Amino acid sequence: MKEGTTVNFDERGLIPVIVQDSTTGEVLMLAYADEKALELTLKKRELYLFSRSRGELWHKGESSGNIMKVREVRLDCDGDALLVMVDPAGPACHTGQRSCFFNTLLKGLKGDVTFPGRLWRYLLKRKVAPPEESYTARLIAQGRPRIAQKIGEEGVEVAIALTQNDREQIIYEASDLLYHLFVGLISSGVSLEEIWEELESRHGKKDI
Amino acid sequence: MKEGTTVNFDERGLIPVIVQDSTTGEVLMLAYADEKALELTLKKRELYLFSRSRGELWHKGESSGNIMKVREVRLDCDGDALLVMVDPAGPACHTGQRSCFFNTLLKGLKGDVTFPGRLWRYLLKRKVAPPEESYTARLIAQGRPRIAQKIGEEGVEVAIALTQNDREQIIYEASDLLYHLFVGLISSGVSLEEIWEELESRHGKKDI
Repeated sequence: MKEGTTVNFDERGLIPVIVQDSTTGEVLMLAYADEKALELTLKKRELYLFSRSRGELWHKGESSGNIMKVREVRLDCDGDALLVMVDPAGPACHTGQRSCFFNTLLKGLKGDVTFPGRLWRYLLKRKVAPPEESYTARLIAQGRPRIAQKIGEEGVEVAIALTQNDREQIIYEASDLLYHLFVGLISSGVSLEEIWEELESRHGKKDI
Repeated sequence: MKEGTTVNFDERGLIPVIVQDSTTGEVLMLAYADEKALELTLKKRELYLFSRSRGELWHKGESSGNIMKVREVRLDCDGDALLVMVDPAGPACHTGQRSCFFNTLLKGLKGDVTFPGRLWRYLLKRKVAPPEESYTARLIAQGRPRIAQKIGEEGVEVAIALTQNDREQIIYEASDLLYHLFVGLISSGVSLEEIWEELESRHGKKDI
């Protein structure tokens, strides 16, 4: 058998499950599954776990409504840990936080790698918000030619900042360009996944 | 005491540690730490673990050279799981794969949310590659005005695709724009973290 294709439950009959947001990349929680929970997760494509405190099968989000749609399930090399990528209907943590990992023991990172996905998700909501409340909604309401114009302008502004080698301006304008590009994609109904897929198909070499 | 600030080791004196790449967001492995390993991780800012198979302290990468620099350490809400964000010197898995989670039990995702960070890391290496071998290295060697020109052009091409509402062209041109924007940022020595930080400072509301 191929290494790692056997699921090795521990002496309690459990396997740890890392739950990761499939849009943002955020690690949401670490939980446990027994054989039954894994079987249901794979079959129903919603996250099922085993609650160690209650000693029972746990359909995540059943009481809170924050169901986790399962996008992908992976097993690690020695078969004793699972990574489940989910599309969460709401916060994963019982405290109401998106992720259970909100306590920082050692703070180092400034920009968070999960941010572009979170921004994307935020802008998606703005698409249907009333234009008077949201700059993004107003921009989308003005129509694609207006957003297109902004992207063209921001592209040129990044170009000028780059040519002048003005570091702060580069960061500022690149952020503007990314924001407007996201709005443009969202207004066209393109998904972030499609962009990553296109880039992967071009650059998806083994070492990337 | 604030909920979740106490580290709760289990009956074996261990706590599970999710290791996540701080640039790409990839979950690299699930491992375990005892009190000593956590203490060393926080102090030395390199990943220390407890090897359950060898029953000893394990300085990750000590034999392979693939040390994991620690960027951030987080504890979950009930204090019984750690998330460590690392900058890995090489593959995390003993098989030579970047991540231990390379076995797919349920395949769903097409575009991978960790891809932009992986592309970024790949392009960083191309910056110092010989121009005759790499389009990216050649572009960088041509200087920032040339890259700036490409970004301006790609911005306008996205604008045209958006205005025409040509879905496939939008995906194609947006990918081109992102690639060239990444090359421009890398050529200027700007980090991806700085872009996410700038975007976060503008949009970093509680609900993002």
